[in-house]
Amino acid sequence: MSDHSEVPVAPVAAFEPPYYVAVFTTVRSEHQSGYSETSARMEDLVKDVPGFLGMDHAQTPGGLGITVGYFRDADALTRWRTDAEHRAAQQRGRAEWYQSYTLHVAKVERSHSFVRAEDPPTVRLPAG
Amino acid sequence: MSDHSEVPVAPVAAFEPPYYVAVFTTVRSEHQSGYSETSARMEDLVKDVPGFLGMDHAQTPGGLGITVGYFRDADALTRWRTDAEHRAAQQRGRAEWYQSYTLHVAKVERSHSFVRAEDPPTVRLPAG
Repeated sequence: MSDHSEVPVAPVAAFEPPYYVAVFTTVRSEHQSGYSETSARMEDLVKDVPGFLGMDHAQTPGGLGITVGYFRDADALTRWRTDAEHRAAQQRGRAEWYQSYTLHVAKVERSHSFVRAEDPPTVRLPAG
Repeated sequence: MSDHSEVPVAPVAAFEPPYYVAVFTTVRSEHQSGYSETSARMEDLVKDVPGFLGMDHAQTPGGLGITVGYFRDADALTRWRTDAEHRAAQQRGRAEWYQSYTLHVAKVERSHSFVRAEDPPTVRLPAG
């Protein structure tokens, strides 16, 4: 959920359905004190949730942020939603950090990934 | 799917489940000729699909892009997936514009939106 992008960057690859996605779309408020620290802590914490599969995040500067969490099943999502530290962060998010947000929780029925083949390397013919 | 953010920006609000989300996570290649025009055209075109509900997009500069499309039902998604002009764009995306991508198609089971209450206006007491 942090704004930095890591290198190399790649989207989380498709899993075998069914699995769950939690799509969290946000616009932040002017009150950002403590946001980065809590966001980094949540990114660490969710990794310990049994059934957590991965997370994608994108942030348009000054615009919309989208975080997508991937979970093996509904139970994994419930564990994350009801985590005490996460609940405290949610509460603070509503009180301070978010201007508006929407959460969509959905069961994946199909998915696929694409990775571009490498551009062919320049062929060096042996001299002579 | 374009990179510009519009003002005022707000996430698409929750709809009454069930509905569908198509989560499209991308990393772009170095070959971007024609991308912006096609992206703008697709944004217009999808609005004509019966059952299309809305779209969210976020783009980390130099990093991940996430587009989430919302559709009333699976038929609406099929109409969009099989649209001839969209199919041509998908093909060009794989050939040129995307380094990698993942598509997750999922049925929303629950959702909710939050909008922050306005900060209370500064109260000016009458002099006296």
